[in-house]
Amino acid sequence: MLEKIKSSADLKQLNNDELKTLCAEIRHELIQTVSENGGHLASNLGVVELTVALHRVYDTPADKIVFDVGHQSYVHKLITGRYDQFGTLRKYGGISGFPKREESEYDCFETGHASTSISAALGLARARDFRKESYHVIALTGDGAMTGGMCYEALNDAGNAGTQLTVILNDNEMSIAPNVGALSGYLTHLRISAGWQSAKKRVRGLKRVPVIGKWAYQRIHSTKRLLKTMMMRDNDVGFFEALGFQYFGPIDGHDLRSLEETLRQAKLCNGPCVIHVLTKKGYGYEQAEKRPETFHGTPPFYIESGDRLKKPEDPSAGHRMADQLSEMAGADPRIVAITAAMPLGTGLDHFAEKFPDRLIDVGIAEEHAATMAAGMAAGGMRPYFAVYSSFFQRCYDQMIHDVCMQRLPVVFLLDRSGIGGEDGQTHHGVFDFAALIPVPGMTVLSPCDANELCAMLRWTITQDGPVAIRYGKDGECMDETGEDEFVPGRWKILSEGKDVTLLATGGMVRIALKARDLLREAGIRAGVVNCPSVKPLDEDFLQNMDPAVPFVTMEEHRTSGGFGAYVAERCRELGIPGPAACIGVPDRFIPHGSHGQLLEEAGLSPARIAERIRGLAGRKDG
Amino acid sequence: MLEKIKSSADLKQLNNDELKTLCAEIRHELIQTVSENGGHLASNLGVVELTVALHRVYDTPADKIVFDVGHQSYVHKLITGRYDQFGTLRKYGGISGFPKREESEYDCFETGHASTSISAALGLARARDFRKESYHVIALTGDGAMTGGMCYEALNDAGNAGTQLTVILNDNEMSIAPNVGALSGYLTHLRISAGWQSAKKRVRGLKRVPVIGKWAYQRIHSTKRLLKTMMMRDNDVGFFEALGFQYFGPIDGHDLRSLEETLRQAKLCNGPCVIHVLTKKGYGYEQAEKRPETFHGTPPFYIESGDRLKKPEDPSAGHRMADQLSEMAGADPRIVAITAAMPLGTGLDHFAEKFPDRLIDVGIAEEHAATMAAGMAAGGMRPYFAVYSSFFQRCYDQMIHDVCMQRLPVVFLLDRSGIGGEDGQTHHGVFDFAALIPVPGMTVLSPCDANELCAMLRWTITQDGPVAIRYGKDGECMDETGEDEFVPGRWKILSEGKDVTLLATGGMVRIALKARDLLREAGIRAGVVNCPSVKPLDEDFLQNMDPAVPFVTMEEHRTSGGFGAYVAERCRELGIPGPAACIGVPDRFIPHGSHGQLLEEAGLSPARIAERIRGLAGRKDG
Repeated sequence: MLEKIKSSADLKQLNNDELKTLCAEIRHELIQTVSENGGHLASNLGVVELTVALHRVYDTPADKIVFDVGHQSYVHKLITGRYDQFGTLRKYGGISGFPKREESEYDCFETGHASTSISAALGLARARDFRKESYHVIALTGDGAMTGGMCYEALNDAGNAGTQLTVILNDNEMSIAPNVGALSGYLTHLRISAGWQSAKKRVRGLKRVPVIGKWAYQRIHSTKRLLKTMMMRDNDVGFFEALGFQYFGPIDGHDLRSLEETLRQAKLCNGPCVIHVLTKKGYGYEQAEKRPETFHGTPPFYIESGDRLKKPEDPSAGHRMADQLSEMAGADPRIVAITAAMPLGTGLDHFAEKFPDRLIDVGIAEEHAATMAAGMAAGGMRPYFAVYSSFFQRCYDQMIHDVCMQRLPVVFLLDRSGIGGEDGQTHHGVFDFAALIPVPGMTVLSPCDANELCAMLRWTITQDGPVAIRYGKDGECMDETGEDEFVPGRWKILSEGKDVTLLATGGMVRIALKARDLLREAGIRAGVVNCPSVKPLDEDFLQNMDPAVPFVTMEEHRTSGGFGAYVAERCRELGIPGPAACIGVPDRFIPHGSHGQLLEEAGLSPARIAERIRGLAGRKDG
Repeated sequence: MLEKIKSSADLKQLNNDELKTLCAEIRHELIQTVSENGGHLASNLGVVELTVALHRVYDTPADKIVFDVGHQSYVHKLITGRYDQFGTLRKYGGISGFPKREESEYDCFETGHASTSISAALGLARARDFRKESYHVIALTGDGAMTGGMCYEALNDAGNAGTQLTVILNDNEMSIAPNVGALSGYLTHLRISAGWQSAKKRVRGLKRVPVIGKWAYQRIHSTKRLLKTMMMRDNDVGFFEALGFQYFGPIDGHDLRSLEETLRQAKLCNGPCVIHVLTKKGYGYEQAEKRPETFHGTPPFYIESGDRLKKPEDPSAGHRMADQLSEMAGADPRIVAITAAMPLGTGLDHFAEKFPDRLIDVGIAEEHAATMAAGMAAGGMRPYFAVYSSFFQRCYDQMIHDVCMQRLPVVFLLDRSGIGGEDGQTHHGVFDFAALIPVPGMTVLSPCDANELCAMLRWTITQDGPVAIRYGKDGECMDETGEDEFVPGRWKILSEGKDVTLLATGGMVRIALKARDLLREAGIRAGVVNCPSVKPLDEDFLQNMDPAVPFVTMEEHRTSGGFGAYVAERCRELGIPGPAACIGVPDRFIPHGSHGQLLEEAGLSPARIAERIRGLAGRKDG
């Protein structure tokens, strides 16, 4: 069945039995492919019926669906002409795990970070109105994304604009981690009262009973109106209604018929509306239903047991960080950890095991997290905010304005820095140095492995200003590092070499050692220096370098505004020769694939780097 | 009276008549000082009674008040020991127009950008709880700031945390421009029904009447409860209550007695609460009451007439931009302008005069503005988002993730770039190049004056990707510019010189010409080049420069990650000598003062630059 479905029109031909079969086939395909390629499973299993219903009720691609975050767009991809390519999901050169405009006209807007869909949909709706076009715009957002402030900014603006726009609130009771925040409680309340719809129907039914029935109907309604008015004075306008939205729901998100009926009703709305749909993450696959967090984003696994194909050999850098932080927290009651809805991804679940009350999960709310951390620091605490580098971009202003201007001791732990992998361009962390280095008072660190990360963590508690530490996912440690103390502004020579010196930071230290080996084969003796302290740099080291030996910087970051650019700047100011080359991520967005493939693509594999350094031979820059 | 008030304790001694006198004296002082120094007037006149009440009810500085945005902290400064220095307000070396921790222990948290206060206050409250301390934390926020998503993230987290925290919603029906957004309508609704409190008291009064009265009381309450429950099922929980806050209000914000009574009640709350206070911007000064927008931030003025001491000689750069954009919009129906609550500050009021329906004011919501703009661009429109450079920091992630990754034709018009003036460190725009240059696909422009800005604007509509144009407030134009066409990647020689070449961008072009004149007096012939195209650079120009003549870059931006650093990077990649020096804003936060004083302080005045270039003589870097 699935292989015949290429469009919204194909779906509209199917009868009820066929639809059931289709949904089952979609689930089978999702489980099969994700078990092989890894990816987001639980959220996609949860939206099978919802996605099918959307494409049946609306005329896509003329009507436009914006997927919030976008990792729940697999079903959408399967039924809009990408079934044949689905086996390439998240693979280098294959289809993306997120909506991509280049892939299909059905993907009208790209996503990857949370809470953007209502803003984007409102933009599309406004464009439609200005251009006097008549398509529908639908934002499909999870309840987790609703903890992000952007949604609220967008709801507020949309309620005011009054234009036709449908927000589907896909309420699965969790974002990645179980949902936090007061709104979550409010949604739970709506869920619990899921029976109210039939109650409402019964009330309406009274109308048909003559005299008494009609009176009762009017009475109930006028009382409701009266009390509604009174209660509005008493501050009781519903959340969505306060924002000018019509509300439908809650609807069973696995019942195709109710879904379609409600969507058809909502389609008639002239203004903005919210449809509250209840779904179950992992629906239809027992392992994922039981462990939705594990199956949010998963590596390849055995379908029957749900176990991962490969056991992780080392704990992640995040887990090593969390273990170190726990040890410190035992000795220092000022230490708290903060996450924006990612306790597992950041490794802070290890911290929570020991100090459940000292891990604060603020929801998908990085802006608030950073300023709240600044508040805690101003109140005498020592907050550690662990966040993926690409999501840290959300609190750029707060980092500058609330943390650095007040020189508050907030530590930003930037996980997944550098080039990521299969999640692709929205998830790479290749702009953080450029965001951090120019900001006065910020200390910027970049450990070569988890041992060094832990040493840095131990150091942070001894000082009194903002610090950012950027690191990748990998927790594997190098032979060259150990229980050393971290000293800011000090670099370490790992390997001597008289022809060229490689100043490497972060994950590139390992690559530099491999490039050194390749260069040795070509007769070039390269020295390798580990540069964990990016701001401040090791200026003594720079000033004592032999000016006759050219040096090159290496980083997993955009070359502009990065480590190398900062080395060059300080060399210029110190009046010493600058780097012969700054090797980093080139000026284009890097796609998805394995980390190794992407390093190769970006020119950052050991072989590509060795090749480039050989090319520099014979040329000397100042 | 005012000169005797130094603390919260002093205030508590005053009787009613003395308080009235005090409030009048505060207003007099505010009007007097701001009429001489310029500053924020209307908002401060609106919070006189509220600020006095807060310091009387709470024990500051033990209890902590966080001022959202912070420009309404003048009254607070006057009554917490800074009356004597008040004449230095906003002057170089004088007291700041925003809370500053270094100034006073009464300033517990610094602000300048909107919507941060609830986050900061929650951080302080959490720190208090962890440290088992017992002070109160109060966030004083305007209704305008409530259009920012951060507030909502903070309310959501605070409602969930349940800790004691008081949010004062200072509702003056406008932020800077009249408020927009659906929440604003909801607050209006609460305001209109300001009579409800006395109504509630009358209902309670019934209880004392026996039999019938008691029945009626219970009846009304149980019906209310019943219907409340029903309505909660029907989605009718109040906005703040949905978020777990207790609500008090609305209260007349100019009635000291009600204010104090309500604050005392709220002080007894164990959890989070909101106090909704109605104030009038400009209260007590007729000119400001009539024109609160004009008196939001004002230059010096005549008290009697309210007229400005100096008429602006030239329109601002923003107004020149808006006039040019209007001209273009007349010819191209795809053009829309977007502002985040700053139609006046950005000059877009000129655009709105001609195209009221094509100026979209989204509220203080830069994140949403950028993504909504991306949505409009994806829908076929050409959005121009004008925003102060320092507030643009709020949509850093959206610029990368929603605009640049999809190569959408959104134009960011970054007003107030470079070093600002009396508003100080939170308002300088000295990080934008560093945010923009590393992002693939972004075109980064920096005009030397408003003529060039207009030429750039005309060019933007001919191309199809994201563009950012950064410029200062000043609309004055140079003799050297005119109706030229803008060509990306092309620089212009303004002045030849054989000893050194100054590559200047933006406002520094003018400074470079002045520095050239000073250098000429010292016998140094400096060439001056205007570099409006920052990304792409003029690589032909760079490659054709005489390698024997050293060159220097000049920009009103942090040296790290700026124009000069990018010139150096490209020179390295092209294999040509880089700049001898990159002159820009040094690595510290720049305080407040006049633009000229701050340029001097940052080493960017013509004299300081000429001095530095003379120092380079005899030294050659590659």
